[in-house]
Amino acid sequence: MHAMSGADQGALGEKIAARLLELAAISDERERLTRLYLGPAHREAADLVSRWMRDAGMAVRIDSTGNVVGRYRGQDPGPATLMLGSHIDTVRDAGRFDGALGVVTAIEIVGAAAKAGKRYPFAIEVIAFGDEEGVRFPSTLSGAKALAGRFDPKSLDEVGEDGVSRRQALLAFGCDPLRLSEEALSPEHALGYVEVHIEQGPVLEQEGLPVGIVTAIDGVTRGLVNVDGVAGHAGTVPMTMRKDALAAAAEMLLAVENRARARPNLVATVGKIDLPGAAANTIPGGARFTLDIRSPADQERLSAVNDIKELVATIARRRGVTAAFAVGHEVPAAVCDARLSDELAAAIEAMGLLPRRLPSGAGHDAMAFDKLIPFAMLFVRCRGGISHNPAEFAAPNDIDLAARVLAGFLDRIGSK
Amino acid sequence: MHAMSGADQGALGEKIAARLLELAAISDERERLTRLYLGPAHREAADLVSRWMRDAGMAVRIDSTGNVVGRYRGQDPGPATLMLGSHIDTVRDAGRFDGALGVVTAIEIVGAAAKAGKRYPFAIEVIAFGDEEGVRFPSTLSGAKALAGRFDPKSLDEVGEDGVSRRQALLAFGCDPLRLSEEALSPEHALGYVEVHIEQGPVLEQEGLPVGIVTAIDGVTRGLVNVDGVAGHAGTVPMTMRKDALAAAAEMLLAVENRARARPNLVATVGKIDLPGAAANTIPGGARFTLDIRSPADQERLSAVNDIKELVATIARRRGVTAAFAVGHEVPAAVCDARLSDELAAAIEAMGLLPRRLPSGAGHDAMAFDKLIPFAMLFVRCRGGISHNPAEFAAPNDIDLAARVLAGFLDRIGSK
Repeated sequence: MHAMSGADQGALGEKIAARLLELAAISDERERLTRLYLGPAHREAADLVSRWMRDAGMAVRIDSTGNVVGRYRGQDPGPATLMLGSHIDTVRDAGRFDGALGVVTAIEIVGAAAKAGKRYPFAIEVIAFGDEEGVRFPSTLSGAKALAGRFDPKSLDEVGEDGVSRRQALLAFGCDPLRLSEEALSPEHALGYVEVHIEQGPVLEQEGLPVGIVTAIDGVTRGLVNVDGVAGHAGTVPMTMRKDALAAAAEMLLAVENRARARPNLVATVGKIDLPGAAANTIPGGARFTLDIRSPADQERLSAVNDIKELVATIARRRGVTAAFAVGHEVPAAVCDARLSDELAAAIEAMGLLPRRLPSGAGHDAMAFDKLIPFAMLFVRCRGGISHNPAEFAAPNDIDLAARVLAGFLDRIGSK
Repeated sequence: MHAMSGADQGALGEKIAARLLELAAISDERERLTRLYLGPAHREAADLVSRWMRDAGMAVRIDSTGNVVGRYRGQDPGPATLMLGSHIDTVRDAGRFDGALGVVTAIEIVGAAAKAGKRYPFAIEVIAFGDEEGVRFPSTLSGAKALAGRFDPKSLDEVGEDGVSRRQALLAFGCDPLRLSEEALSPEHALGYVEVHIEQGPVLEQEGLPVGIVTAIDGVTRGLVNVDGVAGHAGTVPMTMRKDALAAAAEMLLAVENRARARPNLVATVGKIDLPGAAANTIPGGARFTLDIRSPADQERLSAVNDIKELVATIARRRGVTAAFAVGHEVPAAVCDARLSDELAAAIEAMGLLPRRLPSGAGHDAMAFDKLIPFAMLFVRCRGGISHNPAEFAAPNDIDLAARVLAGFLDRIGSK
């Protein structure tokens, strides 16, 4: 591996961790990290990232969606490009690793190559996306969608909570919405997109592994189940005469849990339940609960959705209540590229580590490239699986390992 | 039976129904029936009820808790007294039968006796209690408690939502709180208390019976169960690693339902469930739900409470969450008097009807007399078991039958 002698071991991780702290100080709010797309902290973060990119030997531009794009030219000036990156926007009261880790790690690896005078047989573009968390506007991933040629111009009219439209926010950031369609990349020149990201889940920690390779970004079905029973007095209606909407919902919840447990590559969650007009001394007449069903395999997810629909209907029928299952939002799984993932695996194995493969239950910018260009993701262990929270943490040693895997990966594909 | 020839059949029920309509027009709110204790509508209703009592041959006073008490003297001026009645306060947006039915029916039966020149070997007092629903002040049943010598003077300092204390409200109504202790009745002269009330449940309707006899007013245990699991991302935490507080609560809910179903004289209800910080894409980290457990047999209820505590603990342990079961309010069952209930049963049988016995899952003024004087209750079928709702309805024919049962009951105990 280049630029990383035994003496350097751990130093890269420490440097990345220090830069993540520096970046985390840039926030729209005092006392906590909140960096919304196209807001003042995003502007300041984009400037800092631009400087880091330039220092790492890259030519930098900010594109018409606010993506910061640093280009490190290859051995020759040809158009073949490998993209690395992640996002620099955050949720409200965020942790400092989600997104930023992938951007800073990519910059550091390019910087190390530049320092060593190393060029690859392709250009590398490090991209700091700005619209991954979907906090400010109803739709999200606009930066990656623009690169994929999949940006929907109608979303320019979306208005956030502050009353500002996406179009106005872009103009204020210095972007030209009229040039958005020009951002679309040429798939024939894009070798792929590779992102380092914290896992945001507990699997790697549980298994004692610092990194893992993403198999696919889960497809998601979101739904709402509406159960209508008959409200009644908690004292006067015998158990045998009840049509308790909450008891029916409880049975449905357990059926959902059992169905999801039956398969390894499937999760299903009831995150919210509401009982309109509920009171402690009233048999619930209605219950509405959310459903969130995810799998890296679309067939697995769709089969679970169908089974859950049937289970809900069967339970409702048996209990004499009615239940309506309304499917909301549906997104198919985005499967990672086998070749890029295998190269990540080889780089991991070369370090004596187990190349654990796992799905990503959370969404990422890479989804926007689905079926257009190859992409792969490297997950880094995070403490307790905690994310979207100031307690979010990835250890400098794990970050160091992830950076070395990324460097090893570049060496491998650069040598083929 | 006195005063009710075949030609009169149904007329009494129609008259009572008409007076219930008249009373229901007296409300604190436009467009809906709300008559809170010691409010302006209570004042007006007390005056109307006083007039009806006087017209029915009774001497009327309003006591120091606002009870309207009409006394119909017996064959001799002795102190032996049988009390009849119910309450004239209501919940907000109430129906017109809850409470008022028992007051108006008792007045009509006394009025019919007076018209026929009939006296009993005891005085009859018809009482229109004013504080049964517990809407205005934290504690309730103050009118019946004062008669039972069980009024707690500390409750005079209770303040309702409008900022007015119970003491101030009593004074404004014309009551003298200093004389409250003088209201206590002499148990040796009280033959008992008998109340006609709508069932507020579906059992009589289900069984095609117009009336029923209450075995006991259910004892109640109210509690709150607090489940603490671990919140997590709905996509990133595998099913096997979850500590989902809602899934645990759902299993507990079904265990509660199953335990209650196992015994006939028991009901248990989870009326509310809250998930602090819930979101559709988050595994619930906490869940709190209410428990309401009732039975006419205290041993039955306490045994269920113990079993449910154990079930909750077992489920929590198995799922790796914690669960705390906090018992709130506990009230023992108030068992109805066997002799008075048997006389009600005989009066029902004399009309060719089945004397169905059933518990009262709702509370009533009679609870205040528990273990002090004998009491009994006659339930009247109500449509769909609906109560505390403008749709509350008891048919004039059923009311007529209930009035005849009450008259027959008085004849029976008057002749012994």
